[in-house]
Amino acid sequence: MNKIITIGREFGSGGRELGIRLADELGIKYYDKEILTRMAEDSDFSEEYISSTVETRQSRILPITVGHSISLTSDYRIMQMQELYRTQTKTIRELAEDGDCVIIGRCADYILRDMKPCRIFVFADIESRVQRCMERRTEDEQSMTEQELRRRILAIDKERAGYYNDFTFQKWGDKKNYDLCINTTELDIRECARGLARFF
Amino acid sequence: MNKIITIGREFGSGGRELGIRLADELGIKYYDKEILTRMAEDSDFSEEYISSTVETRQSRILPITVGHSISLTSDYRIMQMQELYRTQTKTIRELAEDGDCVIIGRCADYILRDMKPCRIFVFADIESRVQRCMERRTEDEQSMTEQELRRRILAIDKERAGYYNDFTFQKWGDKKNYDLCINTTELDIRECARGLARFF
Repeated sequence: MNKIITIGREFGSGGRELGIRLADELGIKYYDKEILTRMAEDSDFSEEYISSTVETRQSRILPITVGHSISLTSDYRIMQMQELYRTQTKTIRELAEDGDCVIIGRCADYILRDMKPCRIFVFADIESRVQRCMERRTEDEQSMTEQELRRRILAIDKERAGYYNDFTFQKWGDKKNYDLCINTTELDIRECARGLARFF
Repeated sequence: MNKIITIGREFGSGGRELGIRLADELGIKYYDKEILTRMAEDSDFSEEYISSTVETRQSRILPITVGHSISLTSDYRIMQMQELYRTQTKTIRELAEDGDCVIIGRCADYILRDMKPCRIFVFADIESRVQRCMERRTEDEQSMTEQELRRRILAIDKERAGYYNDFTFQKWGDKKNYDLCINTTELDIRECARGLARFF
């Protein structure tokens, strides 16, 4: 059976960087936003719609298929979300069956549970996450204050938690749903990835 | 600064075995019940009293000094507990200052917080813990049923949690108080210790 490592992560905890570095150290594939691109290729959903929906619970009016835009009623919205989750499940299963890999977020730990992935959850205290985000602000984000970043971090976590909890019937970030929970508050991500690669 | 690894653990999760094996792999010292023996040597408390009090919240009438037995009133009990915790703190600090080591339980993660230990918490689902305890029953425990063992496991966890929460003002087992939480439900402890040793 393929070696599958799934990484759930609090926003700003460095989980994504840890995943990239770990995959690199182990010489295996890494999937994050690639999942959304592949979902768009394999379905009628636009990548923009997928990106705004997977791991969020937003119900904004968005183009749901390439070139079309409609106002979504609640029932229709739920059906769309379920359809999207089926696509997500199919895509993630295909990627995992394709070979050893690290998969970031998107309920992969739950979706692949029969493949016995190593389920990692990465978290850190809010101060270090704000600090991390401050240091890595994009050009658009330069004007954001620490307070605004903090609110954004907490809002994104809330969306990820909501999405995960709705579809997996488990609690996002609850240690009993993971094999390894890593607190990156005082950790050097590069060192941690090296250590983890040796662990595996 | 010395390399200190502290291990909090749910009863029956294999945390103790993991600690022994990890210390062995790393070639460093390991302290578990040794802490209680040393506390007894360095204080007027009997080892029996220490053993029945540290990590529990029992208020049974026990010999509190070698050869003496008294009925404890509530205030006196609290003072005794505080005195015992001071002894525990002193002992654990001395052991940690003495050299690299693995320390099991006894709030060592909190007591040594200024020494920046690597704080591990080991846990597992209740089924696998019952199974583990069933396989390792002592002669005295042979007649215990799974149901009895389950009750005992949960009672010991409750005591450990109460003791930890009372003295550290933190929540026992809450992932944010640890650097690494390890779920041993489907894990081979020996393999895990080897992996962890490589991680460090």
